[in-house]
Amino acid sequence: MSATTTSEGKRGVLITFEGGEGVGKSTQLLLLKARLEQAGYEVLCLREPGGTAIGERIRTVLLDRESAGLDAIAELLLYEAARAQLVTELIEPALAEGMAVLCDRFTDSTLAYQGQARALGFDLVRRANRLGSKGLIPDRTIVLTHDPKTALDRAVKDGADRLEAEGLAFHEQVCEGFELIAAEEPKRVRLVASRVEKQATADAVFKELADLFPRAARHDFPIDEDLLVRIRQERG
Amino acid sequence: MSATTTSEGKRGVLITFEGGEGVGKSTQLLLLKARLEQAGYEVLCLREPGGTAIGERIRTVLLDRESAGLDAIAELLLYEAARAQLVTELIEPALAEGMAVLCDRFTDSTLAYQGQARALGFDLVRRANRLGSKGLIPDRTIVLTHDPKTALDRAVKDGADRLEAEGLAFHEQVCEGFELIAAEEPKRVRLVASRVEKQATADAVFKELADLFPRAARHDFPIDEDLLVRIRQERG
Repeated sequence: MSATTTSEGKRGVLITFEGGEGVGKSTQLLLLKARLEQAGYEVLCLREPGGTAIGERIRTVLLDRESAGLDAIAELLLYEAARAQLVTELIEPALAEGMAVLCDRFTDSTLAYQGQARALGFDLVRRANRLGSKGLIPDRTIVLTHDPKTALDRAVKDGADRLEAEGLAFHEQVCEGFELIAAEEPKRVRLVASRVEKQATADAVFKELADLFPRAARHDFPIDEDLLVRIRQERG
Repeated sequence: MSATTTSEGKRGVLITFEGGEGVGKSTQLLLLKARLEQAGYEVLCLREPGGTAIGERIRTVLLDRESAGLDAIAELLLYEAARAQLVTELIEPALAEGMAVLCDRFTDSTLAYQGQARALGFDLVRRANRLGSKGLIPDRTIVLTHDPKTALDRAVKDGADRLEAEGLAFHEQVCEGFELIAAEEPKRVRLVASRVEKQATADAVFKELADLFPRAARHDFPIDEDLLVRIRQERG
């Protein structure tokens, strides 16, 4: 990795994006990336449970419809295994280089999905999270919120995977899980309503992060159609 | 599963076989199976980290030489994920049916390999073990012991996988790990020296289990060449 422009030997910043299915996390993450890069920050974007070769292999086990008989604890531990690899292989080295690391899902997804929606409980999942994350805590976490029904419809439109096929009641539990986390850790975890207008959502997201990225806060960041097309391509 | 002959509604028995590479665990497990079946017990043989469809997929990630960059905690959590699936899908139902479950490796391998040889420590690995095993503790554990150098030579002869390529110092640490466990839990964990004569080893193994299987203890179990051929075929 090259020398960074974010800081002079300072440790980087870890921002995680959380929320239910189809709430627009990936788009907002890439919009933030563009804004930070324009301001001269070096940015690394990652997604859980993939991001590493080993993580991608674990991801196929997790998301495969044939894994429907997957035990809830086994599922939890697979997420944590992928996380441990991601932390060691990519996140910690990037933070050591001073980079801004933007991660699509992290420990709070595990709390909301496995702890709340699958009813394993926050205590058990927090113990597993400590193993998987090796104690790493995000500097800030954006939880995008949306009416669960609308968000699910948007996600299912493109063909649902195993998680998205779980149904509405499950996703309502996920949302409740995120709200509980935000209530417990208001300084780190910020709820941001996902709106149809991407510019409005992006501005609301950045407002919650501006203190961490002073150079990017100095000017507006208007989102034009070219940027949105580029982001759609990047998402594949 | 059919009604069992081991007991009248009684919970079954979980026996685990542990030890370093090439020490003869699989053979001794299958010899015990034959002895118990001859005495009318219903027996289920399993191996970690496989045994279930999901476990087998995890096993390929773990044993693949390309996973050489696998983080030690990620490796630990993958073993625990496979274990959680095995416990829920196969071990607990079989025990509920009163069966004798013989498992080739379980929680003590994780302590010896990850805790001792990879130096993650017994405390951290015990926390992970509690998650993966869901608190299930074997009724008895046979640790087969052997001079590490000899055992490794035997294993490597057939083509070494990632673990077996670790070298002698690693395997000495594994053996030390098993000895520490046996010293801490002498009632559950029994060290049995693996000898060249399979009959002698099998008799020594059964001596440590006879109280759990009174019907099989009533008569000798001579091992003939036919049985050994059948076991070699079963091992594949």
